[in-house]
Amino acid sequence: MAGNDSLEGLRERLAQFAAERAWEPFHTPKNLSMALIAEAAELVEHFQWLTPEQSAALPADKLEEVAMELADIQIYLIRIADRLGVDLIDSARRKIAINETRYPAERVRGDARRADEYDH
Amino acid sequence: MAGNDSLEGLRERLAQFAAERAWEPFHTPKNLSMALIAEAAELVEHFQWLTPEQSAALPADKLEEVAMELADIQIYLIRIADRLGVDLIDSARRKIAINETRYPAERVRGDARRADEYDH
Amino acid sequence: MAGNDSLEGLRERLAQFAAERAWEPFHTPKNLSMALIAEAAELVEHFQWLTPEQSAALPADKLEEVAMELADIQIYLIRIADRLGVDLIDSARRKIAINETRYPAERVRGDARRADEYDH
Amino acid sequence: MAGNDSLEGLRERLAQFAAERAWEPFHTPKNLSMALIAEAAELVEHFQWLTPEQSAALPADKLEEVAMELADIQIYLIRIADRLGVDLIDSARRKIAINETRYPAERVRGDARRADEYDH
Repeated sequence: MAGNDSLEGLRERLAQFAAERAWEPFHTPKNLSMALIAEAAELVEHFQWLTPEQSAALPADKLEEVAMELADIQIYLIRIADRLGVDLIDSARRKIAINETRYPAERVRGDARRADEYDH
Repeated sequence: MAGNDSLEGLRERLAQFAAERAWEPFHTPKNLSMALIAEAAELVEHFQWLTPEQSAALPADKLEEVAMELADIQIYLIRIADRLGVDLIDSARRKIAINETRYPAERVRGDARRADEYDH
Repeated sequence: MAGNDSLEGLRERLAQFAAERAWEPFHTPKNLSMALIAEAAELVEHFQWLTPEQSAALPADKLEEVAMELADIQIYLIRIADRLGVDLIDSARRKIAINETRYPAERVRGDARRADEYDH
Repeated sequence: MAGNDSLEGLRERLAQFAAERAWEPFHTPKNLSMALIAEAAELVEHFQWLTPEQSAALPADKLEEVAMELADIQIYLIRIADRLGVDLIDSARRKIAINETRYPAERVRGDARRADEYDH
């Protein structure tokens, strides 16, 4: 990542956080992928009994709880990318370019079905 | 997010991507949380039969596949934060500050047990 | 599980399936929990862009795909319980009894909020 | 499911549990799939910092906690199958038969790679 980027600052801070606690041996990509999905599930849990509409209109206290779940996911995502030497921003840009090819706007307008359904 | 930040550029590009495809009605926080965890699971799937050590030493082709899964997670994370009006970088910084208090280095060194186990 | 139960028959068949393929070394509870959540995510993926109402009225071909995802989850659930020596039926009965106490009908009628919200 | 089967008894008890609490409107397949994966993640969380070996040798109190997570998954699995009219036992039997064809023992012995890797 570019040295002046905010993700880069978080990456360094999280690496130091783990180092100070001697947590690196636990922070294998396998283990971190488990921690990440556990945080993703806490996000899901907030929304499971809400209607889609309610999920877009959270009261302030719920929104702050959800923001902290998003933060947890971002933290583990940065951490696993760091352990693997992956550049998140570059990877996301490349994936978006792939998606722009896979889902031509004129073909999928208003239809969010999965890409593989178009390929069958 | 700061206007010159790389996450901000991705946020705008993804909002445009969804708008051009008329996908906004599908992109409720509830639905996006489901899409995000499905991508997190694809990451997990790469590692499920590997040892923790193997997960840290992926061959180049697997590493690229994993980078694209990380990208998918980052993409949905940006998208859900955008729909909720949450600033990912600010939230992550605040959550790290909380974690620094919850897990004092001298207390948890070498022990990655969950925070709630310290509270019981 | 009771010896004449259908889950017991599946447990035996799945143990033999793994043994014939020499997959036991891969089938640790940690690894199986990852495989299980990956299957759960494939279920989620079927529903992510559907309304709650649409998810309850699947066309026949989709319903069969979903049935196979449910089967995958059941299979890994039986397998992990077997590796841990846990009786699924007995555990489920005990957990339902706990839930009956945690969520008294007269108190939670029409309100599916999480149990911990009642405790705060 | 066969009327004398233990899963059938649980299915009826869980349907009554939901009815008494007027929770059926919340129990769409979409919502239940979210609740199920949230429970699967609680299982994953127990194992995330353990070695695969440690995950197979849990102390008794942890094993009981894990048994209750397995129960939660089984409960939501029964519930979602019930809402969709899917027979879990029959589906699992059919899926195992498919797996027996997809993964011939002589071909995959000692190799737990994903099926799709064999197809490429």
